[in-house]
Amino acid sequence: MTGVDPSDLLALCKRRGFIWPSFEIYGGVAGMFDYGPLGCALRNNITDVWRAIYKGREGFVEIDSETVNPREVFKASGHVDEFADLITYCTKCQAPFRADHLVKEFYDNPDVLSPAELDQAFIDHNVKCPECGGDLGKVEEFNLMFKTNIGPGSARIGYLRPETAQGIFVNFNNLYRYNREKLPLGVIQTGRGYRNEIAPRQGMIRMREFNMMEVELFVDPEDKDWPRFPKIENETITLVPNTTCEPVTMTIKEAVDKKIIANRVLAYFVNTTKQFLIRLGIDPARLRFRQHLKDEMAHYAADCWDAEVLLSYGWMEITGIADRGCWDLSRHAQFSGAELTHFKKFDEPIEEEVDKIKANHRLLGPRFKGQAKDIAAAMESMTPADVKDGKLVITVNGEKIEIGSDLFEVVRVKEKVAGKRVVPHVIEPSCGLDRIFYSVLEHAYDYDEKEGYTVLHIKPEVAPIKVAVFPLMEKDGLDDIARDIYEKLQLSGLNSLYDGAGTIGKRYARMDEVGTPFCITVDYESMEGDTKGTVTIRDRDSRDQKRIRIDDAERVIRSLMAGADFKTI
Amino acid sequence: MTGVDPSDLLALCKRRGFIWPSFEIYGGVAGMFDYGPLGCALRNNITDVWRAIYKGREGFVEIDSETVNPREVFKASGHVDEFADLITYCTKCQAPFRADHLVKEFYDNPDVLSPAELDQAFIDHNVKCPECGGDLGKVEEFNLMFKTNIGPGSARIGYLRPETAQGIFVNFNNLYRYNREKLPLGVIQTGRGYRNEIAPRQGMIRMREFNMMEVELFVDPEDKDWPRFPKIENETITLVPNTTCEPVTMTIKEAVDKKIIANRVLAYFVNTTKQFLIRLGIDPARLRFRQHLKDEMAHYAADCWDAEVLLSYGWMEITGIADRGCWDLSRHAQFSGAELTHFKKFDEPIEEEVDKIKANHRLLGPRFKGQAKDIAAAMESMTPADVKDGKLVITVNGEKIEIGSDLFEVVRVKEKVAGKRVVPHVIEPSCGLDRIFYSVLEHAYDYDEKEGYTVLHIKPEVAPIKVAVFPLMEKDGLDDIARDIYEKLQLSGLNSLYDGAGTIGKRYARMDEVGTPFCITVDYESMEGDTKGTVTIRDRDSRDQKRIRIDDAERVIRSLMAGADFKTI
Repeated sequence: MTGVDPSDLLALCKRRGFIWPSFEIYGGVAGMFDYGPLGCALRNNITDVWRAIYKGREGFVEIDSETVNPREVFKASGHVDEFADLITYCTKCQAPFRADHLVKEFYDNPDVLSPAELDQAFIDHNVKCPECGGDLGKVEEFNLMFKTNIGPGSARIGYLRPETAQGIFVNFNNLYRYNREKLPLGVIQTGRGYRNEIAPRQGMIRMREFNMMEVELFVDPEDKDWPRFPKIENETITLVPNTTCEPVTMTIKEAVDKKIIANRVLAYFVNTTKQFLIRLGIDPARLRFRQHLKDEMAHYAADCWDAEVLLSYGWMEITGIADRGCWDLSRHAQFSGAELTHFKKFDEPIEEEVDKIKANHRLLGPRFKGQAKDIAAAMESMTPADVKDGKLVITVNGEKIEIGSDLFEVVRVKEKVAGKRVVPHVIEPSCGLDRIFYSVLEHAYDYDEKEGYTVLHIKPEVAPIKVAVFPLMEKDGLDDIARDIYEKLQLSGLNSLYDGAGTIGKRYARMDEVGTPFCITVDYESMEGDTKGTVTIRDRDSRDQKRIRIDDAERVIRSLMAGADFKTI
Repeated sequence: MTGVDPSDLLALCKRRGFIWPSFEIYGGVAGMFDYGPLGCALRNNITDVWRAIYKGREGFVEIDSETVNPREVFKASGHVDEFADLITYCTKCQAPFRADHLVKEFYDNPDVLSPAELDQAFIDHNVKCPECGGDLGKVEEFNLMFKTNIGPGSARIGYLRPETAQGIFVNFNNLYRYNREKLPLGVIQTGRGYRNEIAPRQGMIRMREFNMMEVELFVDPEDKDWPRFPKIENETITLVPNTTCEPVTMTIKEAVDKKIIANRVLAYFVNTTKQFLIRLGIDPARLRFRQHLKDEMAHYAADCWDAEVLLSYGWMEITGIADRGCWDLSRHAQFSGAELTHFKKFDEPIEEEVDKIKANHRLLGPRFKGQAKDIAAAMESMTPADVKDGKLVITVNGEKIEIGSDLFEVVRVKEKVAGKRVVPHVIEPSCGLDRIFYSVLEHAYDYDEKEGYTVLHIKPEVAPIKVAVFPLMEKDGLDDIARDIYEKLQLSGLNSLYDGAGTIGKRYARMDEVGTPFCITVDYESMEGDTKGTVTIRDRDSRDQKRIRIDDAERVIRSLMAGADFKTI
């Protein structure tokens, strides 16, 4: 656990306009938060870094799909049947509870208990309603998707998506065509996800409406390499493999060579996630990658790693990186009837022996006359697997015709085959944006007990306000110069703030508290003598100050944001 | 009407990855579209221009609030009671229809008819079910919000927001505090809105799930000026006032002076909308601002203008700019009990005569002993309006006490008053992002019948791909140079594309068709002689070509995007 009290941090967030509990004037709704001006800016900056990595560096494409989906989509994805928590209602006061939460003091892993086991646990441990002491009702499943109807009547059931990923999977063929039918095909999407929690807790960690950044990378199932792997193979990372469950630091290359991470492409994106989180300001000493336990991993997943950060709540998952195999596309192919595959060309066409239906043309002609040619074609377009009870059923010109075994034979022939259809595998780095946002704030938070003074050490690249501009006094034309500098910086695209109220010390403190990395002050020296046309710039983290030319301000701030050392400017 | 056939444009959009009908593999859902790679990039670029204007230039703040809202919010906003279309179901086949659409050939304005009038209209004009010829059922209201439940059970009803604006209004006090309790206070929000259409039509014009960009500017009701107004007052604009209903072009200053637009701040943002749309590439000759008719305007609106563009569907509203008065904040104050006001300080405190309650201390002491002081204070905190039937009811230490008229009097006193509470007025420029997106495409669309060739003349600032890089041939190292240029441009943040397949002519055509403004070609001259280290750059609109240095490519493209003339580079 770290020294931050989340309620202090949330109070700061609320007071200064990072996040606000939603609908407060109407009593609020648990598990819902609005992003205020500073929060919205910080969150958008985080998304921009994510885009710079996946779109900019990796060349992936971005799409934006609908949040309301018809039931069919989540029937295929498994969410209609599986996306549930176990609920119990008090028989006296009707209050709802997550059943596993009520017995967590008696079991290490209460979330693996079945409804019947939980019913029994209530009896064994004499668990009653925490609100009124009443008896608890029978434990049942509660689906966590928000349900609605699309269009009038209740004919078409819709759900708010629990993840953005499905919007990418159902568009696979469109995306595949866009990519000129080539793999790898990398697709990113950011947007809302919804989870109708029974009883949300832990601030921004469990939200009913949340923000995701998901990447779905479709790869050839027989080629799990990645071209840029050699560039990062010697970077080190802290892993918690599911064999030892102990943290160990090693290179990415070692992790693959020792078969700790399943393959090179997955390892590359585990490392990309590490790079991303550290670039945002996550403390590397409070970051680890934990492999899912064998019984925790989805049955279809080849391997799965969680990026976990140490927060005041304990170690918390903020990103998952999984090799989901062919699961997603196979399911949607099965439920929709669409073919969702990649045609993998062989380097050279190869000769294969295949079994085929061969029509007996000699008998067909006399028996079917003018239709014989169409019937033969229909038969030969079928495969030996279509033969049932020695018979073939074909449809010709809308008419079903049963063909007896005397009219065809199964023959083995040699064929040139140019390639084969494969179902792409999916590598998925999936980020919980709100959790990342909150983690960035916790790891940036620094409270000086003695001084009663808070500084958020947010990295300049993602800080909501990049620079504040102050006149030393709001008079003598100092304010005009300061406003002019503010306007130029703001129009150049650097989010800036003008502040003329209170002492300079108070103004610095206000900016430190919201993580503004740089403050520019216009003083009397800015107006006369050798120092005319210069201002001071102050660094939040070192509290050092330097004098720079006004004309140089934008360039200096941009180079500081790109990582330049304040000492060298 | 323009020459574009929307189905041609939508086919291009689908084929090339701008937009895709959603959930096609499951048969699709009417009124829902996904943004593909090119569409998502174009749409994000449009949003960035909007942010540059409102956040960058005007200094407004951005927030992001929840899409699922509890019922109370939309009860106050009026959507629960008013946000409805009239529906009828066929009594035979149960198909649902928008009732007014079924009688549109008989009435100029069928959407003003009441349910009873529509029932009668069906009889008068013998209107039957368009699907099966059956009789139509009774016309009733159908609320257009998607409904859901928040949390388990059906205790808390929630709706998907029909507009983003309410999330700003309910956060007014948080925003006001963030702005240090000053007006004006400008707030922007972009995100999803939802409208559960009965029968969506017209492609992207009527979507069930759509994207908005809304601005809520809170101003002092007694000060509807805007500091930057003088900078734009001489710009011209085409207005259709509700007095003449004829288009007329005049300056912004004239429009205000002649009282055509209600006030200067509204006029400023009508003009800002014009600037914004033209910057995106909307054809000024196909853009006008139509004032709402008196009976079309919401009863609370002081004035309202629609930005309309001429599309193949006819004139279509894509942005509304309204002076909504104090309506929104007053309603939420009334329904929530929260005070949503601005404290307007007078320049000097003024002396006012006010009526006050004065306790009769002489009688209170003996009668109430130790409680007398608290009772007197409670009485004097009340106003003469609280006196009912000559009596005051006060609460002291949890006890209700009735005070007779002998114990107080109403006196007129002089008081210094520092200011007063006012309910801010709201100026709202509200953009339909999908409609703007579609309009940009229609106005950029240029199809050459003879050549069978399409060019999208999308402005470089918003074009999804800024530059494509081609090797003349994919060999002899030309491809290595081209890939290197592509990577540098892409990493610099310019969305770029590498293409080595097919003839150069075909590659240019592919890029023209998706609106890529510039193509760079690496040829043999790039590798030798005086021209070593140079490439050609081609301009989409003029089809001119020039030779530039590879090292200069990024700078040249950025200056072209900022509006430089291709001839002068």
